[in-house]
Amino acid sequence: MQFNKKHFLDLKSLEASDIHYILNAAQKMKYILGSSKSCVTPYLRGKTVATLFNEESSRSKLSYQLAAQNLSANVINLSTKKQFEGEDSLKEIGTYVDQMGADFIVVRHPVAGGPHHLAKYVNASVINAGDGRNENPSQALIDLLTILELKGSFTDLKVAIIGDVMHNRVAKSSIWGLLKLGVKISVAGPPTLIPLGIEKTGVSVHHSATEAMIDADVILSLKVQRDRQGDVLIPSLNEYKKLYKLNHQRLSVAKDDVIVMHPGPINRGIEISSGVIDDEISVLDKQQINGIAVRMALFNLLGRSGGNFDAK
Amino acid sequence: MQFNKKHFLDLKSLEASDIHYILNAAQKMKYILGSSKSCVTPYLRGKTVATLFNEESSRSKLSYQLAAQNLSANVINLSTKKQFEGEDSLKEIGTYVDQMGADFIVVRHPVAGGPHHLAKYVNASVINAGDGRNENPSQALIDLLTILELKGSFTDLKVAIIGDVMHNRVAKSSIWGLLKLGVKISVAGPPTLIPLGIEKTGVSVHHSATEAMIDADVILSLKVQRDRQGDVLIPSLNEYKKLYKLNHQRLSVAKDDVIVMHPGPINRGIEISSGVIDDEISVLDKQQINGIAVRMALFNLLGRSGGNFDAK
Amino acid sequence: MQFNKKHFLDLKSLEASDIHYILNAAQKMKYILGSSKSCVTPYLRGKTVATLFNEESSRSKLSYQLAAQNLSANVINLSTKKQFEGEDSLKEIGTYVDQMGADFIVVRHPVAGGPHHLAKYVNASVINAGDGRNENPSQALIDLLTILELKGSFTDLKVAIIGDVMHNRVAKSSIWGLLKLGVKISVAGPPTLIPLGIEKTGVSVHHSATEAMIDADVILSLKVQRDRQGDVLIPSLNEYKKLYKLNHQRLSVAKDDVIVMHPGPINRGIEISSGVIDDEISVLDKQQINGIAVRMALFNLLGRSGGNFDAK
Repeated sequence: MQFNKKHFLDLKSLEASDIHYILNAAQKMKYILGSSKSCVTPYLRGKTVATLFNEESSRSKLSYQLAAQNLSANVINLSTKKQFEGEDSLKEIGTYVDQMGADFIVVRHPVAGGPHHLAKYVNASVINAGDGRNENPSQALIDLLTILELKGSFTDLKVAIIGDVMHNRVAKSSIWGLLKLGVKISVAGPPTLIPLGIEKTGVSVHHSATEAMIDADVILSLKVQRDRQGDVLIPSLNEYKKLYKLNHQRLSVAKDDVIVMHPGPINRGIEISSGVIDDEISVLDKQQINGIAVRMALFNLLGRSGGNFDAK
Repeated sequence: MQFNKKHFLDLKSLEASDIHYILNAAQKMKYILGSSKSCVTPYLRGKTVATLFNEESSRSKLSYQLAAQNLSANVINLSTKKQFEGEDSLKEIGTYVDQMGADFIVVRHPVAGGPHHLAKYVNASVINAGDGRNENPSQALIDLLTILELKGSFTDLKVAIIGDVMHNRVAKSSIWGLLKLGVKISVAGPPTLIPLGIEKTGVSVHHSATEAMIDADVILSLKVQRDRQGDVLIPSLNEYKKLYKLNHQRLSVAKDDVIVMHPGPINRGIEISSGVIDDEISVLDKQQINGIAVRMALFNLLGRSGGNFDAK
Repeated sequence: MQFNKKHFLDLKSLEASDIHYILNAAQKMKYILGSSKSCVTPYLRGKTVATLFNEESSRSKLSYQLAAQNLSANVINLSTKKQFEGEDSLKEIGTYVDQMGADFIVVRHPVAGGPHHLAKYVNASVINAGDGRNENPSQALIDLLTILELKGSFTDLKVAIIGDVMHNRVAKSSIWGLLKLGVKISVAGPPTLIPLGIEKTGVSVHHSATEAMIDADVILSLKVQRDRQGDVLIPSLNEYKKLYKLNHQRLSVAKDDVIVMHPGPINRGIEISSGVIDDEISVLDKQQINGIAVRMALFNLLGRSGGNFDAK
């Protein structure tokens, strides 16, 4: 089997076999990273990766940059907010970068579907690094890789997702990925923050966090989002903490070997207690290196298939 | 013959043979780019290119950066506005970068003659990426390369330049370049936007766009500039559009195989109609890759001659 | 002997032998730089240097970046102020970068001891590029290297330091370095700008600049610092200039072959006269290339010892 996509835009449109293929490639990249960082991997020598982020600074951007540099690619950053606000639309900037010879365009854009739109107009491979409230597929792959490493396989797993699914694009990608892989998913959060009709995809919806976490192998805790004024997008923070904050007591219904994940950045003491964050069941620390490995795998797979296939 | 300049500051002081030499080198670079991007060109390995732009973000800066990286050079960007506003003058920053061992300094500066001034004080090769309202010589070379590719040669060509020549440094460089190459130039635009005395250089000045475009092989459409408040630098935008906007009707006086160029960014529907932009006579798309090729050629030529000649 | 530190945090905790070792390595790096810049030095190929500066733009950051690139390392910059102001503390960003696989973290931080704190939590080598008003050890090494080159050795030298020692972290590092090397130090400046108790370290304190400079081999002139409102941190600028400004008349008490150094950026005509700056006894120009060499030496030494020793 082979990976035959040109772009990497979402998990919704991938097959289970695609996801397994990428995760397998990421494990190989991680092996390379671990064994001898000083041994250069020249897979992308002479190739150019352009990052197009609508945010001044971002941890994901750094992760893509490091992943590209680890493969000997050249990197250019077009990452100031201004470039998206001015006369230039995503399409104009994207096609400009494409015509300059970029081989990969990594896009974070405020509009859902932005990267999909750009992919129609460019020769470069487009990677979605987050589009509005839609998906952030590579970030979800990081969680999937961590689950695979710690649980050995996805067979018979149950994952509980607690919190604001509505505004969280990583959670949406994770749900698509887990569903494709046949993982049982239960979700809990304030009714206003759970997407309408999500149960039709096979996800079971609970409005009690405890209920959702019964027998869970993995718990994914989601950030309480704030709006642009800094207000939280829920009626009452105290109410939220009372019902959904992850703490040791609430976790007691999950499996004994449960692991807790959080895509970060974390609001300590709000969606998750400091006690749980600092407990060894939390696997937050593992995820940065997995982020590099997943992105190296994506660059490498798309880079190879780019010339032969076009899965737009 | 050989290219024996240390710096690349303007087209005004070059000979026709210099321009032909650079364009020839750019065509070779384009061939390298097209044939195998993954094959690394190590001509500038170990060399350092510093960009000094008085603008936060700029398409040209990216183009220089990509060109340098394609030749395996290291790149450092000193490109925030602040660095030019504070205590540090262009000379102080430029000599600082020079003393740190930069081999090339690419300068965009608000003052006409800035790069020429810096060139007197540094060992690095200075490349003018735009100085005030004076010149932007590499950008004009891109247009010249595109003309050469599409028309085969510069012999017996007529180029019409329509719009605000006064505030457009690319147009000024283009005029110098075309004059050196013996190309016939006609210019049209509001009288206040045509530099006084330009006809003494051999350019024919018209105040009707149609008249200037008669039998033209190439039309160069210029952006309507705005001032810092966003106002356009002409009395009436409607008046301008009525007299100078490029549309199909007006183009009918030009040669059948006329091509339309625009140094961008474009104000659609103001200096040029959407119909013309999207027509196949527009060659806007070709110019990005030519931009990379021209800059690679410049780095390569200056890099080689730097040690042996000094044409300051 | 060998360099067996994992981090480079200050000169206060180093031995004379460590300092000699680094300066010797820097001289070798300078030889490499001078002999053939185009010959690539691959000592850090595959390694990643992350810069974490609490300043938008900085000359030192560029110097670290160039030094790293000269050794073929990958560089990522996390250098906007925002990243330190938001939710993320230095520790959080630093450990994040560490977990992503950075091999070196170069930190400039507003809090004294910041880099020392970070060093406790990371696998990467931490390099202090300035912590509050505490130290800037690599910048001081540049001065030491320049002194060594021009004076041949540190034996029987006398160094006079004139100005605001209190707010100047380079001066503090220089004093520690010079003391370790057995150099005689005399200091002069307004009483409020001389750290209390400094004479206990062996430094002789004078409140007349002329007195401090008698028989000096080297004079280190310090910048008059301004506060955030731009006011100078001294009661009267005229008073300061009258008493401490370095000019030729005042310099006459020093040795005939005295050299004048200034860590920059300079306030011309305030702490030092234009006449002295432009005189050949000023060695300002030499210091940029020494900056690159010192930082290349540090990367190389820490990179080698990192895996074997841990001197935290």
